[in-house]
Amino acid sequence: MKNIKVIAFDADDTLFINETYFDETEKKFCGLMQDYLSKQGISQELFKVEIDNLKLYGYGIKGYILSMIEAAMTISNNTIPIEIVEKIIQFGKELLQKPIVLLDGVEETLDGLFGKYKLVVATKGDLLDQRRKLHNSGLGHYFHHIEVMSDKQEKDYVDLIKRLEIKPSEFFMIGNSLKSDVLPVLAIGGHAVHIPFHTTWAHEKIDHKVVHENFSTHENIIEVLKKLV
Amino acid sequence: MKNIKVIAFDADDTLFINETYFDETEKKFCGLMQDYLSKQGISQELFKVEIDNLKLYGYGIKGYILSMIEAAMTISNNTIPIEIVEKIIQFGKELLQKPIVLLDGVEETLDGLFGKYKLVVATKGDLLDQRRKLHNSGLGHYFHHIEVMSDKQEKDYVDLIKRLEIKPSEFFMIGNSLKSDVLPVLAIGGHAVHIPFHTTWAHEKIDHKVVHENFSTHENIIEVLKKLV
Repeated sequence: MKNIKVIAFDADDTLFINETYFDETEKKFCGLMQDYLSKQGISQELFKVEIDNLKLYGYGIKGYILSMIEAAMTISNNTIPIEIVEKIIQFGKELLQKPIVLLDGVEETLDGLFGKYKLVVATKGDLLDQRRKLHNSGLGHYFHHIEVMSDKQEKDYVDLIKRLEIKPSEFFMIGNSLKSDVLPVLAIGGHAVHIPFHTTWAHEKIDHKVVHENFSTHENIIEVLKKLV
Repeated sequence: MKNIKVIAFDADDTLFINETYFDETEKKFCGLMQDYLSKQGISQELFKVEIDNLKLYGYGIKGYILSMIEAAMTISNNTIPIEIVEKIIQFGKELLQKPIVLLDGVEETLDGLFGKYKLVVATKGDLLDQRRKLHNSGLGHYFHHIEVMSDKQEKDYVDLIKRLEIKPSEFFMIGNSLKSDVLPVLAIGGHAVHIPFHTTWAHEKIDHKVVHENFSTHENIIEVLKKLV
C-alpha cells in the first residue's frame, strides 16, 4: 500500500504474550485470598478496583500491583495479615520479570516490512516495562521508536498522528484489541488490522462485528505482508 | 542560536514544583513510622528500597508508593498493621493529585520561544503523571510532544536525538538536574542550561562544578531568552 507511511504495532498480545501472565497472577491472587471470598467474587472486586484506579494509575503492572493490594484490603475488610501484601508485591515483581515469548509470525512479519515503512510500537503499557520487553524480545532494531500512549481513544491517536507528522490515511495500526487498536483508528481515517489473541481482558471486549473498507482481521500476523508488501 | 532545532524542557522542578511534594509525603511517611525508627533511619531505609527498585519500577509516583509500602514492612519487620498500608496508598493517591504550581518565569519563557523552535518536554517521570500535570499546568499547547525517557543517561539522549531526527549540536536541554539534564547532554555534543531548584533528590546530586562552552547556569529560566531569542 503505497500511501502508508507509518505502521504501528500494539505490543502486548500482538508482538508477545502478556494477558496470559496477568491471568496467571490473578489466579495466584485468588488463591491467596480464597479464605475471604469465592474466586469469582475476588476477580470481580479486583476488576472494580482496577477500573476505579485507571484514571489515576493508568495501564501497566505497577498500578496492577497497587490495585491488588487495595482489593485485598477491601475484600478482607482490612483483616489480611501484612504477609499477604508482601506476597502481592512479590507476585508483581515476578510479573515484571516474565520471559518474553514472541507470537507466531511476528519476526517474519517485521522482517518483511522493515525498510519499506517506518515501524513504531504504539502501546498503552508502562514505558519502562515496554522498553524492557522490547529490548528482551530482540525486536527492538525493527522499530524507529516506541509511542507510549496514556490511552488508546480517538484523541490519543489524533495526537499520535500529529506527533508522527503524517495524515491519518498514512497510518496503519496492527493489534489484538478491536476496542483499542482498531475502532478509534478507523474512526479518524486510518487503516487497521486485527490479530485476535486467545484471551482478552474484560475491559478490552466489545460485542459487535467490525466492517470497514480500511479494516481486515487475520489469524496470523504474517498475513499482513500480503496487504503491505 | 541559529543552529538549535529542538529545545527540550525537563518537567518536574523545572516547569513546576515536584520535589517539594515528595518531601511532604516523605515527612508524612516518617510520621506514620515514627514508633519503629528515627526519622533519619526511616528516610535512609526508604531511599535504599527506592534505589533497589529503580531498575524494576523506574521513576514515578506508583513505584514510590510501592517502595514506601516495602520500606514500611522492612522497617517494622512485618509488624505494621494493615491500616498503615492503607494510609501509604492514600498518601500516594494524594501525591498523584497535587495542584500544579508553575515556577517563576516559565510561562514567559515558553511564550518567548514558541514558534521559533520545536519545544518538547523530556522527562523520566511516569507518562500518565506527566501528561496529567502538563495538561493541568495549562502549558500543553507550547509543546510539540512529551518525550518520556526511561532514564536520562547518555544512551537515552542518543536515542532521543535519533527519534527527533536531529544532530546533537541542534539539541538544547533545560533542567534542574546537573546529573540528568546537563552532563549527559554535554557529553554527546548538545547544549544545556541548568536552572537550580531549591531542593534536589539525593539520587540526583553531584559534587563537582560543571564548566563547558555549551553550558550555562541561571537563577531564573527566563534568562535563557537572552541566549535563544
